[in-house]
Amino acid sequence: MVWWGHRAHGDVADEVVERVAKRVWEGMGLIVLHSAHFSKIFKRLMGSPCALNWREAGERERLWVVNPGHPIAKGLPAHFELENEEMYGEPFSVPEPLETVFVSWFQGGEIFRSGLTYRRGAGNVFYFRPGHETYPTYYDEMIGKVLRNAVNWAYNPNRYPNITEAPNVPVDKALEPIVARGEGLHSAGEEGFK
Amino acid sequence: MVWWGHRAHGDVADEVVERVAKRVWEGMGLIVLHSAHFSKIFKRLMGSPCALNWREAGERERLWVVNPGHPIAKGLPAHFELENEEMYGEPFSVPEPLETVFVSWFQGGEIFRSGLTYRRGAGNVFYFRPGHETYPTYYDEMIGKVLRNAVNWAYNPNRYPNITEAPNVPVDKALEPIVARGEGLHSAGEEGFK
Amino acid sequence: MVWWGHRAHGDVADEVVERVAKRVWEGMGLIVLHSAHFSKIFKRLMGSPCALNWREAGERERLWVVNPGHPIAKGLPAHFELENEEMYGEPFSVPEPLETVFVSWFQGGEIFRSGLTYRRGAGNVFYFRPGHETYPTYYDEMIGKVLRNAVNWAYNPNRYPNITEAPNVPVDKALEPIVARGEGLHSAGEEGFK
Amino acid sequence: MVWWGHRAHGDVADEVVERVAKRVWEGMGLIVLHSAHFSKIFKRLMGSPCALNWREAGERERLWVVNPGHPIAKGLPAHFELENEEMYGEPFSVPEPLETVFVSWFQGGEIFRSGLTYRRGAGNVFYFRPGHETYPTYYDEMIGKVLRNAVNWAYNPNRYPNITEAPNVPVDKALEPIVARGEGLHSAGEEGFK
Repeated sequence: MVWWGHRAHGDVADEVVERVAKRVWEGMGLIVLHSAHFSKIFKRLMGSPCALNWREAGERERLWVVNPGHPIAKGLPAHFELENEEMYGEPFSVPEPLETVFVSWFQGGEIFRSGLTYRRGAGNVFYFRPGHETYPTYYDEMIGKVLRNAVNWAYNPNRYPNITEAPNVPVDKALEPIVARGEGLHSAGEEGFK
Repeated sequence: MVWWGHRAHGDVADEVVERVAKRVWEGMGLIVLHSAHFSKIFKRLMGSPCALNWREAGERERLWVVNPGHPIAKGLPAHFELENEEMYGEPFSVPEPLETVFVSWFQGGEIFRSGLTYRRGAGNVFYFRPGHETYPTYYDEMIGKVLRNAVNWAYNPNRYPNITEAPNVPVDKALEPIVARGEGLHSAGEEGFK
Repeated sequence: MVWWGHRAHGDVADEVVERVAKRVWEGMGLIVLHSAHFSKIFKRLMGSPCALNWREAGERERLWVVNPGHPIAKGLPAHFELENEEMYGEPFSVPEPLETVFVSWFQGGEIFRSGLTYRRGAGNVFYFRPGHETYPTYYDEMIGKVLRNAVNWAYNPNRYPNITEAPNVPVDKALEPIVARGEGLHSAGEEGFK
Repeated sequence: MVWWGHRAHGDVADEVVERVAKRVWEGMGLIVLHSAHFSKIFKRLMGSPCALNWREAGERERLWVVNPGHPIAKGLPAHFELENEEMYGEPFSVPEPLETVFVSWFQGGEIFRSGLTYRRGAGNVFYFRPGHETYPTYYDEMIGKVLRNAVNWAYNPNRYPNITEAPNVPVDKALEPIVARGEGLHSAGEEGFK
């Protein structure tokens, strides 16, 4: 699933957000674009503010590949430019990623970690910075390559519905023979507290 | 802040959870114990289900230090035992940690990543598995050492109130001289969309 | 490349090790098996001792999948057993991995992080614990699945020969116009110090 | 230990490098500065080429704190400048760090991950980019703060001499009672193969 949003983040119902989060945990890949850093679903999966500095001046952005062997960087040059983009500046208050793929240079003096990978439950998540709606970013050939690579990287045909479950393993079904000892809180077969 | 809870996870008001999360992002350390894996605050900060398998049989747990140089393992032996504990088994659906400090062996045949570190915003987070309320776990000398080490590791006297803010950087205040180009979405001084 | 070795680690020429390391950095995947934790090539790529505790008693090992969504765990059950294996115990002195895929339980009371992923240069590296030569481990169906998954995960058809180079970028070829200022150590076009 | 070197990397004896590496694994902190990215000891501990692009033009570097809660960033502003520095550009072929603390912006159009943390064995390792010998970098107040913070972060008063050892655990000393089964490769009490 590819998610972009801006003005209407607040209009997305919380139930929809929970449904998408559950599907990501179960294995669905998620690509989060540009201003969707403040989408409910991204903040939900990151567990952090996802804030940043910004400026809308149509300035030059240069993306550098810092992880050339990563599948999302396949076929890209060492760096490429977007002549007009909105600036996003650090600190970007997201968790430390699994891997940093891109870092951006901005004409006005800022930098930004522009391509970050995460896993949440069984789902692959990729945040990609470029994409302001008043510039032709999504028509750029390199951006197209990144998006196609990201979709291929994030996609997982399998589904892991058990990932949200916390089953009790009965004593008499333990993999190694054991006997119950001491005092218990739960009666046999009881569900845990969520 | 040290957080333990079990039966009453659902009674904690969402507003309290959001307030604690904000304070963690601003730099407050958080130690999450045992059944608090399902607390609202831990699930909020992890952005994942935090589910696991479990069994209440008072079986033997042996904790192994897999990261002996980590501050949280200071002064501990290579391994130590809790003769009676509740079993928690993998998969534990949390994000890949910054570092894994402990892994547990259980008599009934399971293993569990029992000590995991995270950072969310500016706040250090440590999850520690042992602690079932029907066993004397918190009177164990080694458990006491881990908790004291964890508090020292997580504590940060500084506060980072800006971590949740997304300020606009005006074009005429850019660190390098630039001029605005192209079409804008926001008028000057306007706030971003959250 | 799949690497297994035991008695003859010391007989592998250092030049061969350097050649394999260079090819990994340039993008070749490397799967390191069992006793090859002490192979020259693995120690070279990890930059750490790669030591562990061990016991040869033909005891039961149970591998748990702690990262079910990882490509290397595709098609595997939640856990599987090897009735007779050599024990490897923590601490395993390797760097914190990108991701932990498997953790093993041993009958004699130890645990081990049995499946760990790394990237070195552009090359994917996977360490996998099982495989002692006096037991029929490599005939096990689950082990076969893991190895096939690992090869597919590690394989990268592209090559990155520049990854070991440190080119000088001349001032007059800078991407943004600058003029040289201050005193220099190198004359123009000179190579750096390695 | 703080390590800086440039012209004479090759003159450092391999035995010295191995001795320092062993001491790091045993818990000694190591701060690696600027051109020491190509020092033997840093390459040894990283297991990767540690290459980068460079230019000596006395250009402006601006360091951004991307991880404000990290102990190494304590007391620093959101960004600070070095008016004249050598440029280092990505890709920097080092392993994915535990945490990225600083990212640099360069006047000529490049970026660089300037502050990176690692652990090797029990030893904390911090790489910090600035420091060219023809500029007064080490007299800068902010640089001084970073170095003091880094020394405090890396320092560990404890020593872990066992980290390089691979002891055999005899069957009759197993933590859980087991009996040896199947065929063995080693006779009792024999050392492993290194």
